Amino acid sequence: MELRLGTKASLSKTVTDKDVRMFAEVSLDYNPLHLDDEVAKKSIFGRRIAHGDISLGLISAVLGNYMPGRGTIYLGQDIKFVAPVFIDDTITAEAEIVEIIPEKNRYRIRTDVKNQAGVLVATGFALVKYQAA
Amino acid sequence: MELRLGTKASLSKTVTDKDVRMFAEVSLDYNPLHLDDEVAKKSIFGRRIAHGDISLGLISAVLGNYMPGRGTIYLGQDIKFVAPVFIDDTITAEAEIVEIIPEKNRYRIRTDVKNQAGVLVATGFALVKYQAA
Repeated sequence: MELRLGTKASLSKTVTDKDVRMFAEVSLDYNPLHLDDEVAKKSIFGRRIAHGDISLGLISAVLGNYMPGRGTIYLGQDIKFVAPVFIDDTITAEAEIVEIIPEKNRYRIRTDVKNQAGVLVATGFALVKYQAA
Repeated sequence: MELRLGTKASLSKTVTDKDVRMFAEVSLDYNPLHLDDEVAKKSIFGRRIAHGDISLGLISAVLGNYMPGRGTIYLGQDIKFVAPVFIDDTITAEAEIVEIIPEKNRYRIRTDVKNQAGVLVATGFALVKYQAA
């Protein structure tokens, strides 16, 4: 893939109950908003939501596997979680190169995550290092 | 827990091979730097590293389960990944309240992750919303 300003890639996945339970085990984040139907029902969301960091994981998957691709080193990320992701939502992480810093092999990449209705759920920018093999 | 400027909490975990494989499944991030010994050996790291977002997950665990605690809504995060986390490293996520915005029930929280040698591996700030029940 040619890496120019405006180059884009995306990746979608359906966030299952199993994903949320595995992520809880990996992260130790057992917040009942993610895991307990009764607690979540009484929250402002009305039902269980996925961990925000699952959206970030999908962003890292786009960066590390597609664009820039294998060998990408993830240097940083800022992210705003702007809407909830519910269990069984299908989310799409979109990445677009917005700045290239050639002398450092660095790329600044806009990273947006949307749900199946096209609603933005997370938005921010990643900074990565990548040197073509 | 009383939530004042300077209030801190932390949580540690050892990042296992199983964690990295589960995170790959949840995130779809199968970057060989995380999963393939042979590829990782030839990288600048010399061996497999954990996904950066596993450190973020541990941060969200501190925020959502300890400080501010249950009911915390994760609004945003900026993070710099400054050193690698290797398989079987024990990482500690530390959170400290650095700003309180009472009219919005918002807290700005410094979030640092260190390894078992005390080396900073990730650093940044989280923004959360939290209203005591």
